[in-house]
Amino acid sequence: MDNKIRSAEILCVGTELLLGDIVNTNAAFLSQKLAELGICVYKHTAVGDNPERLKAALRCALESADMVITSGGLGPTYDDLTKETVAEHFGRQMELDAHSLCRIEEYFKKTGRVMTENNRKQAMMPKGAVIFDNDYGTAPALALCGGEGNTKTVIMLPGPPNEIIPIFNEKVMPYLEGRRNSVIVSRNVHIFGMGESAVENVIGEIMKKSENPTVAPYCKEGEVRLRVTASAADGDEARKMCDSVIERISNTEVGQYIYGIDCETLERAALEFLRQRGLSFACAESCTGGLISKRMTEISGASEVFLGGCVTYANEAKMRLLGVREQTLAEHGAVSEQTAAEMARGVREALGADVGVSVTGIAGPTGGTPEKPVGTVFVGISTKTGEQVRKLSLSPKKSREYIRSVSASNAFDMVLKSGL
Amino acid sequence: MDNKIRSAEILCVGTELLLGDIVNTNAAFLSQKLAELGICVYKHTAVGDNPERLKAALRCALESADMVITSGGLGPTYDDLTKETVAEHFGRQMELDAHSLCRIEEYFKKTGRVMTENNRKQAMMPKGAVIFDNDYGTAPALALCGGEGNTKTVIMLPGPPNEIIPIFNEKVMPYLEGRRNSVIVSRNVHIFGMGESAVENVIGEIMKKSENPTVAPYCKEGEVRLRVTASAADGDEARKMCDSVIERISNTEVGQYIYGIDCETLERAALEFLRQRGLSFACAESCTGGLISKRMTEISGASEVFLGGCVTYANEAKMRLLGVREQTLAEHGAVSEQTAAEMARGVREALGADVGVSVTGIAGPTGGTPEKPVGTVFVGISTKTGEQVRKLSLSPKKSREYIRSVSASNAFDMVLKSGL
Repeated sequence: MDNKIRSAEILCVGTELLLGDIVNTNAAFLSQKLAELGICVYKHTAVGDNPERLKAALRCALESADMVITSGGLGPTYDDLTKETVAEHFGRQMELDAHSLCRIEEYFKKTGRVMTENNRKQAMMPKGAVIFDNDYGTAPALALCGGEGNTKTVIMLPGPPNEIIPIFNEKVMPYLEGRRNSVIVSRNVHIFGMGESAVENVIGEIMKKSENPTVAPYCKEGEVRLRVTASAADGDEARKMCDSVIERISNTEVGQYIYGIDCETLERAALEFLRQRGLSFACAESCTGGLISKRMTEISGASEVFLGGCVTYANEAKMRLLGVREQTLAEHGAVSEQTAAEMARGVREALGADVGVSVTGIAGPTGGTPEKPVGTVFVGISTKTGEQVRKLSLSPKKSREYIRSVSASNAFDMVLKSGL
Repeated sequence: MDNKIRSAEILCVGTELLLGDIVNTNAAFLSQKLAELGICVYKHTAVGDNPERLKAALRCALESADMVITSGGLGPTYDDLTKETVAEHFGRQMELDAHSLCRIEEYFKKTGRVMTENNRKQAMMPKGAVIFDNDYGTAPALALCGGEGNTKTVIMLPGPPNEIIPIFNEKVMPYLEGRRNSVIVSRNVHIFGMGESAVENVIGEIMKKSENPTVAPYCKEGEVRLRVTASAADGDEARKMCDSVIERISNTEVGQYIYGIDCETLERAALEFLRQRGLSFACAESCTGGLISKRMTEISGASEVFLGGCVTYANEAKMRLLGVREQTLAEHGAVSEQTAAEMARGVREALGADVGVSVTGIAGPTGGTPEKPVGTVFVGISTKTGEQVRKLSLSPKKSREYIRSVSASNAFDMVLKSGL
């Protein structure tokens, strides 16, 4: 029996998850990372800070998978019990780890906070654990092998996303890289402007018949993504297998709606499009209320392209900041093709940008009228050659969040289709 | 044996969850709703579109809980198998539901899309199911009771958040309200400016000794929330029990950091603060890049208070839109107390608002210098009586997202502490 890890389950611990107070982003993060390593994830489980149910979930997960990754329950408080539960499962004692204690003391000195007695608990470790220093918080992460023939591995990580992400990337990935079996390569085909059923109707046969690579669709607020995943002995071969399926998909009717391969998001594709052409960008937002700016500036290095934006919620703000004419607002209304065009041109000129985009619409749940129901949105783009406006009629039953998100996505799509 | 539902597990189905392509927001949403109903959630599980593992997870969940709520796997494609699996578990046949088929046909007619043959599958239902019409998509939701003495209930919901949320609120809540046992009331105490360990050090005794109500802490990007939960025969009594614990907490040192009870978010508290005083609001953002505007305008009705904002990423934009002086930028830099003050005043004047806030800083991961490392952020506020600026020195090891989020939160906190 080798010590390769082929399968894993993810076990998240925290009553706040079961109360719905926080969303389990850790499970998604860890799954992505394990997919990159070619480790198959069978299941996610979340349990509360309840020792009995934690013990049962751990036992159940270790029965089917080679590895369990836990998040949470390493904190300083009395109900943080993950380490103790895993140690008990593998029949290990807890002992004070002097190195970890020293680091925790230093951490408190450096951040100027007072170390409380309960923080010492975070330096107690099961005997035989491999410890991963935590540079981002007080709870070290750890790996413990046990079970029959030492073939089972449990990796315990802290709960806060801003700790688990860097620890995993910096410390756990290198640990796992030596213990994986085959190489799995995934590529994402990004589609905007075509629904999931329509995509499947065109390429259903390709999807159904694909075993290696597999083709899995999923949709997300107006977008469809196809994940093409191949498993092979080495990365180059797996990549080639993916590329050949992607080529087949691109040659169908779906091809014209593909805006990128592995480009993460529409905003990243739009940013890259503008960067390659040396064009600067500005945006004027009404109903999206800063979402376009926020999505652009989430990308580190956005400042190469993004000059700034105006969120003009009030009509007064549209006139003052963007020079939208009072007459336009009076004749056509704030939600109109004309206002969208003037907003896009206005922000482009105000900021001296090459490309300006604008969004004005009714995100709901209130504010709709019979002629302009909730979901009516105008998305504009302005370049030196003039303005273009796209009208969206989204379902008034969609949420405010959905309407805002799809509207912002359309602005990025218009940049990509601008012909610049 | 009554037919009350006391406990539940949530079972989410979809390979995209296990690949980490989407975050499981449905589990959090359903948990919050079940907590409101006083139904205790034992566990969340997510499995792929794999019939064997779905069957095993369903069996395991129904062993311990009265009810299982599933999300996902009701779609039109060949790998959507939730209904079929539950029907098999309870020994039921599948049959065509004419009412659902008719509604699906209508849905396609109304949205102008073409109905494909595989959409018919969404009208096949297990015999004896209670069907909840889906006004937001093509897959109806359903409830099926079965097991020994018909004491187990499975509720099957579609996967997309923009379908599951309204269906649950409009159709499933009324169904469950008649089947709950006791009333549970939860109140959230919102704290900003004090860390989790520090809070627990002050009120640890209150937390540990509380059984009913319970007091559970959780932290989220610079905030700590205490969830106080009481169970009683009626709502009034449970509310009184919560209030008495909240009063005890407010009388400790923690009290001064409490910014609200059940106010959801800092931005909502700030919006409400301004609304009650009849004050209008504008914001100027550099490193937060639209996040303040986005968070404000996520709230329906924000337009009562929020006039607009400027995202001024480039120096040129700070000067053009906000009138920040070139000399200030040259002498003190874009990330400085002086620039923050001029940005806040500038946006207040540009938009004619009563209150202007500003953020300028280094969100990283690049752009730091020895004097101004990543995490250096200035947050300003301007009112008719002048400007105030708060300097943040967040850890350079924190993520860009964290630094942006905490910076925006500080801007809202400054509004609440403005003394207006």
